[in-house]
Amino acid sequence: MRGRFITLEGGEGTGKSTQARHLAAWLRARGHTVVETREPGGSSGAEALRAVLVDAPVDGWDAVGEALLLSAARRDHLRHVIWPALRRGDWVVCDRFADSTLAYQGHGHGLAPETLEVLYELVAGPFGPDLTLVLDLDPNVGLMRARARGAVTRFEALDIAFHARVRLGFLDIAGHEPERCTVIAADGDEDTVTARTIKAVQARIEAWSADEGMLTGRVS
Amino acid sequence: MRGRFITLEGGEGTGKSTQARHLAAWLRARGHTVVETREPGGSSGAEALRAVLVDAPVDGWDAVGEALLLSAARRDHLRHVIWPALRRGDWVVCDRFADSTLAYQGHGHGLAPETLEVLYELVAGPFGPDLTLVLDLDPNVGLMRARARGAVTRFEALDIAFHARVRLGFLDIAGHEPERCTVIAADGDEDTVTARTIKAVQARIEAWSADEGMLTGRVS
Repeated sequence: MRGRFITLEGGEGTGKSTQARHLAAWLRARGHTVVETREPGGSSGAEALRAVLVDAPVDGWDAVGEALLLSAARRDHLRHVIWPALRRGDWVVCDRFADSTLAYQGHGHGLAPETLEVLYELVAGPFGPDLTLVLDLDPNVGLMRARARGAVTRFEALDIAFHARVRLGFLDIAGHEPERCTVIAADGDEDTVTARTIKAVQARIEAWSADEGMLTGRVS
Repeated sequence: MRGRFITLEGGEGTGKSTQARHLAAWLRARGHTVVETREPGGSSGAEALRAVLVDAPVDGWDAVGEALLLSAARRDHLRHVIWPALRRGDWVVCDRFADSTLAYQGHGHGLAPETLEVLYELVAGPFGPDLTLVLDLDPNVGLMRARARGAVTRFEALDIAFHARVRLGFLDIAGHEPERCTVIAADGDEDTVTARTIKAVQARIEAWSADEGMLTGRVS
């Protein structure tokens, strides 16, 4: 089976990075070659931009600046990591992708979704994830988790109303693209959420296999 | 007289930085407070992005990535340097601005002008320079000058056909916005070009003064 592009999305402390690791290990155990990556970052140019963003004071970049910077980073990441991996037939598991820009800079900070769509179209054209897992969690719980691990970044420092808008943003995206997105409740312990995640991916892989079987059937 | 935003544009080796310095000194001698700045860069966030762009290998950023990165840098530069200076009533003299993106990433690398217009609109809205001085020179001469001072950047390393497209791009921009742009022949020695530049700015300042006088006349 050719590789697919799977993204994990969600607010702070929802366990995206942990679940991305488990998912990559599970795919490898099934014999796939997997590239694990993340946004912002994932390629050398994009990681340099991530550093510029993270090092800035809170008022350093406004939402427009962030959206442009994240889009530039995404272009680099796609060209140098994601697209080459998929061309090789590898699987790609990415911790955050374009839905985070829509949820944070759009729903969170109020940038028009049309603006963000124009930027995405410029960066990626018609390309997008084959599957997006939206890890959903009450932001009060998520922020507590993020703080417990000492990882309060400039985004995490924003107020709870902002994070509530981001959560609803992710759910709105998922609700409008059910064929691409699966919402995973992220409120259990790590193993429970992993089991939910793997189950969701397994179901999707079976559907892809059936599609590929049908296609092969047609060709032969 | 309230401060104005003056940009200097043109290809490599046309003497933009030198003329920007002379122009700022001339404006200061007339009693104005002048902020001298440049793109890409001019603010701390934008200078960090300039470093990311300049440090990258030649194939590191494609035209789309460059345009996004330059737009993010421009947003930072406008918010933190140019707009605050103009709000204070200062003059701003900027070595390169948005016309360079249109000439290099658009005319030079083939990005659609509409795409670059959308990015500019997102970054700056209806704001733009009060006066743009386009320093025009045969790129063969300009590149020889740039090489002589040892300043061959990744842009300067591109082939002569590219630089010829950039030159025509600047002339095309100037031809379509004659009320904003003045083309200055940059083929003489430094003093000659400075004299041409100052003469052009002086003429424009007289027109602005007349406008402001008319406005004042109407109000009183």
